[in-house]
Amino acid sequence: MQEFLRVKTVQEVLEIIRGFEPLGIERVSLCRSYGRVMASPLDSPEPVPHFSRSTMDGYAVRSRDTFGASETLPALLEVSGEIFMGEVASHSLQNGKAMVIPTGGMLPQGADAVVMVEYTHLLDEKTVEVTRPVAPGENVIGAGEDIARGQRLFEKGWILRPQDVACLAAVGVGQVPLMARPRVAVISTGDEIVPGDGGELPGGKVRDMNTYSLKGLVKEGGAIVGTCMILKDDLKSMVHTCRDLFESHDVILFSGGSSVGARDYTLKIVESFEDAQLFVAGVAIRPGKPTILARMGPKIFWGLPGHPFSAMMVCRLLVVPMLHVLQGKKTKQGPFENPGTVPALLERALPSVHGRTDCVPVKLKESSDGHTAEPLFGRSAMISVLVKADGYVVISEHDEGLDRGALVDVHLFSAL
Amino acid sequence: MQEFLRVKTVQEVLEIIRGFEPLGIERVSLCRSYGRVMASPLDSPEPVPHFSRSTMDGYAVRSRDTFGASETLPALLEVSGEIFMGEVASHSLQNGKAMVIPTGGMLPQGADAVVMVEYTHLLDEKTVEVTRPVAPGENVIGAGEDIARGQRLFEKGWILRPQDVACLAAVGVGQVPLMARPRVAVISTGDEIVPGDGGELPGGKVRDMNTYSLKGLVKEGGAIVGTCMILKDDLKSMVHTCRDLFESHDVILFSGGSSVGARDYTLKIVESFEDAQLFVAGVAIRPGKPTILARMGPKIFWGLPGHPFSAMMVCRLLVVPMLHVLQGKKTKQGPFENPGTVPALLERALPSVHGRTDCVPVKLKESSDGHTAEPLFGRSAMISVLVKADGYVVISEHDEGLDRGALVDVHLFSAL
Repeated sequence: MQEFLRVKTVQEVLEIIRGFEPLGIERVSLCRSYGRVMASPLDSPEPVPHFSRSTMDGYAVRSRDTFGASETLPALLEVSGEIFMGEVASHSLQNGKAMVIPTGGMLPQGADAVVMVEYTHLLDEKTVEVTRPVAPGENVIGAGEDIARGQRLFEKGWILRPQDVACLAAVGVGQVPLMARPRVAVISTGDEIVPGDGGELPGGKVRDMNTYSLKGLVKEGGAIVGTCMILKDDLKSMVHTCRDLFESHDVILFSGGSSVGARDYTLKIVESFEDAQLFVAGVAIRPGKPTILARMGPKIFWGLPGHPFSAMMVCRLLVVPMLHVLQGKKTKQGPFENPGTVPALLERALPSVHGRTDCVPVKLKESSDGHTAEPLFGRSAMISVLVKADGYVVISEHDEGLDRGALVDVHLFSAL
Repeated sequence: MQEFLRVKTVQEVLEIIRGFEPLGIERVSLCRSYGRVMASPLDSPEPVPHFSRSTMDGYAVRSRDTFGASETLPALLEVSGEIFMGEVASHSLQNGKAMVIPTGGMLPQGADAVVMVEYTHLLDEKTVEVTRPVAPGENVIGAGEDIARGQRLFEKGWILRPQDVACLAAVGVGQVPLMARPRVAVISTGDEIVPGDGGELPGGKVRDMNTYSLKGLVKEGGAIVGTCMILKDDLKSMVHTCRDLFESHDVILFSGGSSVGARDYTLKIVESFEDAQLFVAGVAIRPGKPTILARMGPKIFWGLPGHPFSAMMVCRLLVVPMLHVLQGKKTKQGPFENPGTVPALLERALPSVHGRTDCVPVKLKESSDGHTAEPLFGRSAMISVLVKADGYVVISEHDEGLDRGALVDVHLFSAL
């Protein structure tokens, strides 16, 4: 634990994160499963539809009774009853008979097709004329034609969309085996920090921003926001609080000042856990270098920089992907990546350094052929820059900068 | 109300919807404001930072006391105290003096710059040597330099992202004036429908899907899902329930069967309200033609088709945009549209009819130069088609179809 860790690249940190195991499985009732992740493959326990249904208003018939029927030589069938929506026919259909059936009605035993009401003529209460033949299966959706019993519906890792939840409802899966969601505590530290919920601001104090931005990103990442709090720069109470929070949380996001002293505090908290494993102490990213990642057994601890922009970018680039890994989420659903980017031409050159990842906030502007991206500069403490920005450009560790006019992907800042 | 309404195009319906007024304004505490919409412009009530802060660990000085300082001829300053994080200096800085200050510390009165600790040498407890001059404002972020008091932070209609919420925290806005969110009731009707939450399925019955898919879309639209229920095809109880639900909901989504009879029920419910105004009875869209939109005073009633795919597409294309209008949301935030589309080449020609909008579910596939979109065919009742689909292609009312190989925008089905 005491060994000196060199600063890691973003790719190295992501590699470590991808090695984390998902948290576990829980059974969740269907109405709370939106956006959640399937914990195992699911084969349909039931066919859909459950029974052969009419797709038209008309008469359920044996198709062969209609063969050869025409306007001039209609088939005459005896009306032996009516089928009501949601009910099973009282008897099966005999040769030469027909039963009234509504769209969606359940075909009686013996029937294999439906004649649309448009091609019939009721002669009297008991007799119907059919003026067109129907083929077997015509105007019918067969049992299991939509979904067969045992058909694979979802693979493990699938993120449930509204129609997927509806599909689970259709096949009678009321409780879904889902990946557990991590519970995340968010802590802002600093003797100068006071709550950001309004009220008088005492001299020398600063309102908390980081719990608000981090909380929003944790929600976007699909995790549960647990305790959010502000701590003074007091090592003993920090250690005590972290031990407490790990009783009821899987992850702690700890944002300290980025000063050398604050970073020391964070490392000391990690060291105070006997089973601590320090994975990362410093990331080659700007902003966000003084980032710490450690595990205490199954629990995960992030020490994030105190500057709002730095904390937010590290959370977006590293913490949120980890929240996805803990939930067994794939970064791609189907063959496409999350499309939260917009292509744009860079308005100014952006210098960088090989081996370091740079994140530069940009403002998007409309131009004759698409968009241009204006880099916004400002100290990393500035929240106003982030508010003005539509998104950010990433200069990868393999690049030494981007030229003016370069085509870049702007990662959009999203609203939940 | 009794006049015959011709079928309207999607554009005509959207035009009607855009005429609806937002619901109203409510004050919401900051921690519940993520993704919500500003109800009025907001100017910052406070400057950020509130006071001049050091951006380095070092000494707060009067810059002119350091002018001309160098390694060989350092400036000698008297250390007159230390500034602690979150505290106001006990006294102001006099000529020829310096005070120890941490990163983020509040500058004492009289100081106008900070010398980094790297360019100083403590000679004794009371005397520090400064080996480089600092300019006024150097290593300092001035009061209001990030955000000036009175500066416009957000326009009306802005959707709050995590950093925007953090910004409101920074300027002490604990309660935010936001647009109210519509409360939506979701009703599935049909004598054959039973709840979709598992359990035994009686003969002739069908499990409810529409409340599940519609609920997910209503959530994605930022609205509040209120009561969800199943009703039998009984006009009196339908009317009674709708009157009841309007007491506590702004919008009712009523999905009936798409049969002629079911549509009649829906129209009769509308007619039973004396103040009902029928805007739409039939939309030129496939699937989804038998769609009804009415207002009863301030309340809004949608009659959606009963088929799952139809109900879902009408909800996505018409109901969700209306939920945005009721919340005062703009379709664009900044200069870009919601980027939930992926460009792809169509694998097959899709015929359509001028004057009608067609929505065709597609599966995306990776190809050498991007993606191709495979249209999925199936009856509109089929949930399996929707589950297989990654998104859908819209053939506008101005087109008579799309050619094989055409470049199309695939609208992705998203997970909340």
